[in-house]
Amino acid sequence: MRLNLKILRIDLTGRSYAEESLEAKGPAGGRYLTSRIVREEVPPTCDPLSAENKLVLACGPLAGRGISSAGRLSVGCKSPLTGGIKEANAGGTAADALARLGWTAVVLEGRSPQWVVLVVDREGVRFLPAPPYLNKGNYEVARRLREEFGPEYAFITLGPAGERKLWASGVAVSDIYGRPSRIAARGGVGAVMGSKGVKAILLAAPRGETLQPADPAEAMTAKKEFHRIIATSERTRVLAEYGTAETMGLVQALGALPTRNFREGRFEQADRIDGRALYNLIKERRGAGRHTERCMASCLIRCSNAVPGPDGTEIVAPLEYETLGLMGSNLGVGDLDAIARWNYYCNDLGVDTIEVGAALGVMAEAGLVGFGDVAALEKIILEIYQGTIVGRLAGMGAGFCGLALGVERIPVVKNQAISAYDPRGVKGTGITYATSPMGADHTAGLTVFAPVDHHAGTGQRELSYRMQLSRAAYDALGLCAFLLSATGPHPETVTGLLNAYYGADLGPDYLLRLGAEVLALEVDFNRRAGLPETEEIPGFMREEKLGPYGLIWDIPSEELRDFWRDLPALGGSSCD
Amino acid sequence: MRLNLKILRIDLTGRSYAEESLEAKGPAGGRYLTSRIVREEVPPTCDPLSAENKLVLACGPLAGRGISSAGRLSVGCKSPLTGGIKEANAGGTAADALARLGWTAVVLEGRSPQWVVLVVDREGVRFLPAPPYLNKGNYEVARRLREEFGPEYAFITLGPAGERKLWASGVAVSDIYGRPSRIAARGGVGAVMGSKGVKAILLAAPRGETLQPADPAEAMTAKKEFHRIIATSERTRVLAEYGTAETMGLVQALGALPTRNFREGRFEQADRIDGRALYNLIKERRGAGRHTERCMASCLIRCSNAVPGPDGTEIVAPLEYETLGLMGSNLGVGDLDAIARWNYYCNDLGVDTIEVGAALGVMAEAGLVGFGDVAALEKIILEIYQGTIVGRLAGMGAGFCGLALGVERIPVVKNQAISAYDPRGVKGTGITYATSPMGADHTAGLTVFAPVDHHAGTGQRELSYRMQLSRAAYDALGLCAFLLSATGPHPETVTGLLNAYYGADLGPDYLLRLGAEVLALEVDFNRRAGLPETEEIPGFMREEKLGPYGLIWDIPSEELRDFWRDLPALGGSSCD
Repeated sequence: MRLNLKILRIDLTGRSYAEESLEAKGPAGGRYLTSRIVREEVPPTCDPLSAENKLVLACGPLAGRGISSAGRLSVGCKSPLTGGIKEANAGGTAADALARLGWTAVVLEGRSPQWVVLVVDREGVRFLPAPPYLNKGNYEVARRLREEFGPEYAFITLGPAGERKLWASGVAVSDIYGRPSRIAARGGVGAVMGSKGVKAILLAAPRGETLQPADPAEAMTAKKEFHRIIATSERTRVLAEYGTAETMGLVQALGALPTRNFREGRFEQADRIDGRALYNLIKERRGAGRHTERCMASCLIRCSNAVPGPDGTEIVAPLEYETLGLMGSNLGVGDLDAIARWNYYCNDLGVDTIEVGAALGVMAEAGLVGFGDVAALEKIILEIYQGTIVGRLAGMGAGFCGLALGVERIPVVKNQAISAYDPRGVKGTGITYATSPMGADHTAGLTVFAPVDHHAGTGQRELSYRMQLSRAAYDALGLCAFLLSATGPHPETVTGLLNAYYGADLGPDYLLRLGAEVLALEVDFNRRAGLPETEEIPGFMREEKLGPYGLIWDIPSEELRDFWRDLPALGGSSCD
Repeated sequence: MRLNLKILRIDLTGRSYAEESLEAKGPAGGRYLTSRIVREEVPPTCDPLSAENKLVLACGPLAGRGISSAGRLSVGCKSPLTGGIKEANAGGTAADALARLGWTAVVLEGRSPQWVVLVVDREGVRFLPAPPYLNKGNYEVARRLREEFGPEYAFITLGPAGERKLWASGVAVSDIYGRPSRIAARGGVGAVMGSKGVKAILLAAPRGETLQPADPAEAMTAKKEFHRIIATSERTRVLAEYGTAETMGLVQALGALPTRNFREGRFEQADRIDGRALYNLIKERRGAGRHTERCMASCLIRCSNAVPGPDGTEIVAPLEYETLGLMGSNLGVGDLDAIARWNYYCNDLGVDTIEVGAALGVMAEAGLVGFGDVAALEKIILEIYQGTIVGRLAGMGAGFCGLALGVERIPVVKNQAISAYDPRGVKGTGITYATSPMGADHTAGLTVFAPVDHHAGTGQRELSYRMQLSRAAYDALGLCAFLLSATGPHPETVTGLLNAYYGADLGPDYLLRLGAEVLALEVDFNRRAGLPETEEIPGFMREEKLGPYGLIWDIPSEELRDFWRDLPALGGSSCD
């Protein structure tokens, strides 16, 4: 089949916009579209913060239809952090709004001479002056936008870190309560939005309206079946109870929990910051605390939470496992209140908690601050607001920070911080870090929930490969990765939805084909950008044994050679 | 003709070495050989500071033969500063010694687990422990090496900056007086030597011995003619009297003198630091001062000098124009003593004065230090020794420094600092910065001495192209670029030498063909490393008018497109 995807191009340089149709072979959006447009239109060797780069924001083909967990917003560009192609996605309200406005993607091009706020509605695009919002944190900007425009607008905002084009800066998407707390965090996509001079994008989201399927009866059946599988999944139940924080127990047991700049694999205070500790804290303090919340309107997984302070007021929502790992154990910090507070600051600044946590770990490695020294660590985070040198280094990420400080143990791949799964203890995820076009990004192919021996080397290559394809497919459909544990084994439930809504006739193999196509686009872009296809896990992980299992990174480099050899061939300028 | 170049490969990882022959089409060495080996053997996407990179040190085909200005040593690798291929060359004694030992190049491969000093003589290579020399400046290391090994050794040393792998670190070569002051300074070649774990290389140079030509009678005639042309050149006379400092008058007149981080094109105190001021200071103070000196044994140009302090003792030797520009006018400093002192510190640390001067300018731009504040600027330079964050930023160069401090006006191309010729006022050199595989490196194709209107845009592309080919050819022959003003118009004098020494029959067109071949190798490496062929001059130079002529960078990007289209095609793995 052939589909026409509707694209809204906004030229910031000339303050104009245009509609366009882009043909696709089947229903796809999200990461497929961001990577396709970046690959076809962005010069791979350009400066990522120049006007030549583009920022693409795309929803999936099932957004805006009241389907659970189908409203992820993909944000894609050439990354200033990795120098390669990037897609980071977030939940919240923007993807649904975009879909209801009739767009699959908004493409930001050029560079505005003055900072602007973009308002996109059925009438078109307005360019408003941004000065009233500049140098203000995401929370204040969100509150003011909501006051001025009303709650029917979804918004995408840039924090002070993105205004300053820090490489760890992300793009914040409003959740269903108006919090700017769903962050497309990784790879410096915020710096690219900043380089375009865009402080915020508002999307008018007509309430109640949903998009009509090609076959309404079939759609209702397909949606019901999809929802039934999600609702009856054991993993969904766990996520609703403990959130992603629950993962800490598993990773601690594997001896793969980043602890004190990836020096140890278990944290002696893990039980103070794990899923149960967080659950108990929320239960005890009550107030604004919630152990389960949606970030997208129709979500049945509800992995989010809201963390109350001692007085019951909200500190941050949500608090997730990777933040607990990188800003907790990795910094020797066993203090949930501190981590929640830092998460709030990072959301407000619009920076990636993983990258900043890893950078702080590198600073502690350099002796600039002590592991576990909550007050000193907090001071550095607050210095990101002030723009001191140390604050800026924290906001530029672990790799840059390590170069500036002369640290040898830098936990990055493609200059991007390794997430809360030490590759020595979760080998398949290590292979993902080494081979993903995204760099060390667990969301590109997390293997830790697969029922395999994560310490063993055998079979991990195939596992990582499969996971990367699955994740890419879900990202290309705007589907939340947390669905995978429920619907992953039932691809026909996903294609069932696509068939019903688009009048298509896709077999369940569509997903892996789509994932492969997305990766082919990305691998091709990176090759032309001069990035090695496979990048080594940091050398210290081959040498230093990680306790308590004495794990090292022992996957031979040769085993990862030609990792992507089976991807489909691409046409010269189009992926179709 | 076919020549066999003798190569010495040193494997640092395994502490072994091997001899090897490399076939070449004609007499060539230096930058031809460094770029050829780097292109053929270094994975273009590798981490420049990993064991995969190689450091190649090569002399030209006329070294060690008592020929004037023919003993430049080329140092090549993948650059940590630019991410592309790099060749930096220096005078001094090492190239002659290498040639007399029978080698055209030494290739450092792998990475030594412990720091070593390499001693190369007719018996082979010895690996000595480096600890007694570590963390010591080049001058102390040079003095001790000379004491321990004797003055018959030429040496190549690494300062503390290279040990710490700072991106502005270079490689120091001993001059004929044993000073470690001839620096292959640009592109971070020192960091690559540091990443290999090599603190110093000693080359036994049997005294008095010269290499025999194929046709001794013809060689004597050719050498005489070559020397006659050099000795009678007007430019040679100027260089012997005022050194390169003389250039400041010309660039000041053009309104292209980097002043206060490239904000102005003329420096109101230029007459305190220009060629005449330096000449007068040397004449008045006498003592150890010299207004002319050789850096290579047989040099007839003698552009070097030695700067005496108020008490007559030597501050530094030599002091050159680019240092006066970047550490003087660019920092608002009109104090010759201070600049000479800073030059000494930079030589001792082993860092590029151009890159550090530009980084200090960026720091002043950020308000970290005041322009013209000699004491505060000196404090930062001394912090490079101490390894403070600010000291490290200065040693990482202008681009990194600008990112760390959030400065927008960063005078770099390919992340390398623009030299002492503002591209707005010397357009041809600006085109060299934008197109050279080396980044903003005036030595790759300086046009300022050509008799053209340097402010006009027309004809500059062709001028830069020709100069880049000529420079590449001279670099490939180990010839000093300062010869060009004398022998440039007489290529037959150079090929006359090559023919006599190598029994060849080369026409004068050999030079440009050789230059084109070198550039083809480099452009190809950079393409595969993911660098854009042409990189824009910094945006602020298109916008800000440079006084007093109101100059902007106005060469259209399109004019530089396909700049290298006429280079020769290369074979897959060999340039031959």
